Amino acid sequence: MSVEETVRELAVAAQKAAKVVCVLSTDKKNEALERISRKLIAEAQQIKQENEKDLAYAREQGLSDAMIDRLTVSDAVIESMANGLRDVIGLPDPVGSVTGMWLRPNGLQVGRVRIPLGVIGMIYEARPNATIDAAGLCLKAGNAVILRGGSEAFNSNTVLARIIQEALRETGIPEAAAQVIPVRDRLAVNALLAQDDSVDLIIPRGGEALIRFVTENSRIPVLKHYKGVCHIYVDETAGIGMAEEISYNAKVQRPGVCNAMETLLVHEAVAEAFLLQMARRFAEAGVELRGCPKTCQIIPEAKQATDEDWQAEYLDLILAVKVVSSMDEAIEHIAEYGSAHTEAIVTSDYGRARRFLREVDASVVLVNASTRFNDGGELGLGAEIGISTSKLHAYGPMGLEELTTTKFVVFGDGQVRT
Amino acid sequence: MSVEETVRELAVAAQKAAKVVCVLSTDKKNEALERISRKLIAEAQQIKQENEKDLAYAREQGLSDAMIDRLTVSDAVIESMANGLRDVIGLPDPVGSVTGMWLRPNGLQVGRVRIPLGVIGMIYEARPNATIDAAGLCLKAGNAVILRGGSEAFNSNTVLARIIQEALRETGIPEAAAQVIPVRDRLAVNALLAQDDSVDLIIPRGGEALIRFVTENSRIPVLKHYKGVCHIYVDETAGIGMAEEISYNAKVQRPGVCNAMETLLVHEAVAEAFLLQMARRFAEAGVELRGCPKTCQIIPEAKQATDEDWQAEYLDLILAVKVVSSMDEAIEHIAEYGSAHTEAIVTSDYGRARRFLREVDASVVLVNASTRFNDGGELGLGAEIGISTSKLHAYGPMGLEELTTTKFVVFGDGQVRT
Repeated sequence: MSVEETVRELAVAAQKAAKVVCVLSTDKKNEALERISRKLIAEAQQIKQENEKDLAYAREQGLSDAMIDRLTVSDAVIESMANGLRDVIGLPDPVGSVTGMWLRPNGLQVGRVRIPLGVIGMIYEARPNATIDAAGLCLKAGNAVILRGGSEAFNSNTVLARIIQEALRETGIPEAAAQVIPVRDRLAVNALLAQDDSVDLIIPRGGEALIRFVTENSRIPVLKHYKGVCHIYVDETAGIGMAEEISYNAKVQRPGVCNAMETLLVHEAVAEAFLLQMARRFAEAGVELRGCPKTCQIIPEAKQATDEDWQAEYLDLILAVKVVSSMDEAIEHIAEYGSAHTEAIVTSDYGRARRFLREVDASVVLVNASTRFNDGGELGLGAEIGISTSKLHAYGPMGLEELTTTKFVVFGDGQVRT
Repeated sequence: MSVEETVRELAVAAQKAAKVVCVLSTDKKNEALERISRKLIAEAQQIKQENEKDLAYAREQGLSDAMIDRLTVSDAVIESMANGLRDVIGLPDPVGSVTGMWLRPNGLQVGRVRIPLGVIGMIYEARPNATIDAAGLCLKAGNAVILRGGSEAFNSNTVLARIIQEALRETGIPEAAAQVIPVRDRLAVNALLAQDDSVDLIIPRGGEALIRFVTENSRIPVLKHYKGVCHIYVDETAGIGMAEEISYNAKVQRPGVCNAMETLLVHEAVAEAFLLQMARRFAEAGVELRGCPKTCQIIPEAKQATDEDWQAEYLDLILAVKVVSSMDEAIEHIAEYGSAHTEAIVTSDYGRARRFLREVDASVVLVNASTRFNDGGELGLGAEIGISTSKLHAYGPMGLEELTTTKFVVFGDGQVRT
């Protein structure tokens, strides 16, 4: 069977399974997740053994330490996967929840009820834990899922798929509700992106190159974000201490993630006081600064920023810094260079806080808090399957609700239209 | 300037205008709609004169009476457009409404706020009133809109565009917030579908061919429905009188629309009593019946249905009829042949009503009411810009809310992530 045929068969089976999963009770879905969770712990040895094959191959191929780190499934990673599933069990089931109900003048009662989307295709890089996370969330939201992790994680994902499917079978749920594509060949991704008859949504997670490839080759709707060029604007009314803590946190706490700050905008009225203090802290943390001319005047150690710096998602201990003469200039800079991901203001002015919240177009806009809070868990969604920076269907972190849609239900007593 | 360049310029201007329109107050938007409404009445003569050019051309081209009817802008049509805008003025502004707000354990207050989508491209057939309807709804929801009606309505749409833009200018809103593509050439549609840098959403309205063309050629997300193959299932527990009224209404009241019934499914226990009575009423209304073998036994005048009949969207006084031996069979038939548009059951049984609502996958599922109620106005959305039968973003009738998305807003007091 060709790669295309294999993927096609998988997708058709998923579509069939989706019709079963969409009406499962919450109890049944939780029972399956609980079984997967227990099996992960019980089969830890087997999982690590298969993972070792991937790791050996990765070392042979000379993959970077960071990649090997993400690929590694240790006991701690297994425990974290198992606990992650228990967290998902604890989350409310979005399916069947009524988002609104009202009565029409003719007596019709009209409501909107959450229903699953159908079949979701997840495409991600070589992080085996993503296989369990994604399967757990998709199943809880009543969807079937087709999983395609990086080919470097092929053996790890294959054993995880076996565990998931055994748990599904024991719970009486079709195994095709969660499938890992059993083909290493990268053509499998193209084949998956062509199944627009049976797959309802594609969610890619990974670097910009992966996401661009998926977006450009998919005939199925894609929810994604390309990159996070996140700004903090320190207003002239900002408390300097608060601005310092927030800026430090947003840049340093975990620089390699999409909600880390990449550009700091500072109002000229506070630029000197704030930047001198901030520069010391950033220097201690090893942050390289690339500044506009005014910034470089205040901080002689800063490099001159180029236009590329304003567009950069460094994902590293590097920060672009710009002194602005007004809030207008800050908002314009964000409109031009921002990626609609996460934007924050530090201010003590009521009107400016309101204006920033209203005028800045980003999936998450914050006042007096770190950009690092753009995360499904941190914002209270319970868990997150990704972040969307496109506006259709979901904008911002996507939790269980974003893996559903609503249908209208109408309760009548014989009403006809006149 | 080439067609592509013209459309490209329009789209870029729309994107710029969208950044202004998205933060306009409700009062300002309503003022613009009110001005358009008044100008329509004041310039009725001019509108009809331009429309007459289109009509003369349409007659020359030998367009069907139905098409010429839809193309005609009479005084009544002008009044209805003006009143339609007043209705939109009366609807609540979705922008800025908070769909939820909660407090996190660390004191962060997190909310979701409705915001406009950006730039919407509307592609429709030769119905000039759609130009006003679509412009009104898109503007009220804070979006810029690019309108492309059928080329047969070119002169009518051009004069309507002038009126809209005059009203915008007088209100102090950029004219590019609502533009009609000033090119008759059909290549303009292809050009519009390629503006994925500046246009956020395409909504096509019209026949299946138009919608397929748009879907297959668009690089921009499309919200649409292909067709409405709507069923009514008359359960064995149905009140025969109610089933008769609902079935008659769903087929006869307006057969040419997407929410009219196309297939009637009848439980065998009530088939004879119900169908004999129903056949008389349908015969009086001139409805042609195409039945399964059992139907043809009961109603000898019925033609034999073929597999094509179960898939047909007749949009006419033709009805496919099938006798089923169980509710399971009805639900399976709908799953196989339905178009996820509108499905109804007539029953007096509580459990069956619940099961139908839960298991049937359609944008609107009704109990004891006519399929004709799948309509934004009828369901209480106030107005409708289309019906979506795809699940992403919107499923079912799309009103003002569906022309928006939500962003997260976060109110902090200096919170950082640990």
